[in-house]
Amino acid sequence: MSRWPAKVTVKEVGPRDGLQNEATPIATADKIAWINLLSETGLSYIEVTSFVHPKWIPQLADAVEVAEGIRRKAGVTYAALVPNEKGLERALGAGVDEVGVFMSASEAHNQKNINKTIAATFPVLEAVVKTAKQAGKTVRGYVSTVFGCPYEGPVAVDQVLMVADRLLAMEVDELSLGDTIGVATPKQVEDVLAEVLRRFPVERIAMHFHDTRGTALANILVSMEMGITTFDSSLGGLGGCPYAPGASGNVATDDLVYMLHGMGIETGIDVEQLTKAALFIRDKIGRPLPSRYLQTVGS
Amino acid sequence: MSRWPAKVTVKEVGPRDGLQNEATPIATADKIAWINLLSETGLSYIEVTSFVHPKWIPQLADAVEVAEGIRRKAGVTYAALVPNEKGLERALGAGVDEVGVFMSASEAHNQKNINKTIAATFPVLEAVVKTAKQAGKTVRGYVSTVFGCPYEGPVAVDQVLMVADRLLAMEVDELSLGDTIGVATPKQVEDVLAEVLRRFPVERIAMHFHDTRGTALANILVSMEMGITTFDSSLGGLGGCPYAPGASGNVATDDLVYMLHGMGIETGIDVEQLTKAALFIRDKIGRPLPSRYLQTVGS
Repeated sequence: MSRWPAKVTVKEVGPRDGLQNEATPIATADKIAWINLLSETGLSYIEVTSFVHPKWIPQLADAVEVAEGIRRKAGVTYAALVPNEKGLERALGAGVDEVGVFMSASEAHNQKNINKTIAATFPVLEAVVKTAKQAGKTVRGYVSTVFGCPYEGPVAVDQVLMVADRLLAMEVDELSLGDTIGVATPKQVEDVLAEVLRRFPVERIAMHFHDTRGTALANILVSMEMGITTFDSSLGGLGGCPYAPGASGNVATDDLVYMLHGMGIETGIDVEQLTKAALFIRDKIGRPLPSRYLQTVGS
Repeated sequence: MSRWPAKVTVKEVGPRDGLQNEATPIATADKIAWINLLSETGLSYIEVTSFVHPKWIPQLADAVEVAEGIRRKAGVTYAALVPNEKGLERALGAGVDEVGVFMSASEAHNQKNINKTIAATFPVLEAVVKTAKQAGKTVRGYVSTVFGCPYEGPVAVDQVLMVADRLLAMEVDELSLGDTIGVATPKQVEDVLAEVLRRFPVERIAMHFHDTRGTALANILVSMEMGITTFDSSLGGLGGCPYAPGASGNVATDDLVYMLHGMGIETGIDVEQLTKAALFIRDKIGRPLPSRYLQTVGS
């Protein structure tokens, strides 16, 4: 038996995690056109936007228009982030299939990012999850700074387990563990996952790596060896710091799919369609994207 | 026992494999200054140039001046490529510590690259290795296009084994297996290495990955799991195709060292000195280099 899975689910977070970090404003119509292209690639999951208050993320102020404007393809889950009940209301109104709630494993990042202590965040998310479930939606829980915090540095595994435990107790359907600042290396991934999987079922865990220091695919490789089969990624590696050209954000969907297909691992994704969608958003953004694979493709 | 080694040898090939692919001409004095900086990083092996005819690689026409001009640090091996006996003569005259001979596993790439069939290449290398050994030098054998050829596509493992066998029979001290065009994925690396290591001792095998499609660190991870402990890399990821900004060449030494150190694997390299050397050559080249790690470092 192979050390690697036969099949992997790739969850595209580019329209949200990618574009929310882009300095270049992208027109609503272009976002919609891009998501429609993504729907034709064979991806089964697209996170289309975030219903955070526009004051915090002006790049995604058009969340409702995007979620309502896209062409829904059967078999594709269209998800969006929501920070609180107000955001949830807008998301439900716009008819998203799944909502994502989010918090950090580190106190300082949680405070900076959502302006609350970790303890004060739980009841807010609990209410959101409950209402979303009552509305018949599935819920995804994101944990940020699992492998390191920009303010605190290393993050204790116990802290990750505590946050994961609380989110799973709220009955989120899946937990996405994020290396928000892209510091993880394979040994750390193995160590953290060993603890996480001792407590929680592998089917409910997804990994969300950023490729900031080039280690994302190696981290995904070791995650697969630990049994993980769901990974978040962003087409073209969108979402790098806008002030560091070439700096990568999320691991690039195109790099990930290149590796997986090269290993004989099924994703259901059509590389030609994926490349078409990558070139589309690259042209809208107007500069080369950080993904490696995309550099090898002609225009 | 860990699946990964406690210690890895990183062989810096930037001054040769990196600069030979750079369109920007680098002054001889700058190359020398850069190699002198590299000597202060803790690297134990630096490939400083190639004694190929300047007609083929004008970027390295100053091979003699570079090899003679650098400050030799005790404990560092200063190596250079040589294509034939004439090149060897110049290399020996310039006092290099080790010579590298090279050929391809694929017929078409060998013909394009060194203008000979594979069969006609063996006797040339045989003579070089013999003379180098008589002069008391160690010899490294490079095999290119091990995981794929730009002209032929996939390369049969038997072809790799045949070339490796002939080079090892010439008594090259180490064989460096190259993914010249950066197409390999971890499963292929595992498959090829399984065959190679069935025949040849692991201590004599080094891996040489390019990060063209982002898979280099994942390929290194799986190579370590197969027992390999020597890897070639190029500081800053130098050596990408000059016509594709952002395209990576060799796996970046700084990305590699970041991953290894993060995993608790010793390299003997001082990251601060390494970064200093990387910023030096980045400034000489005058544009951002492809490495990921370097983007996270201030200027």
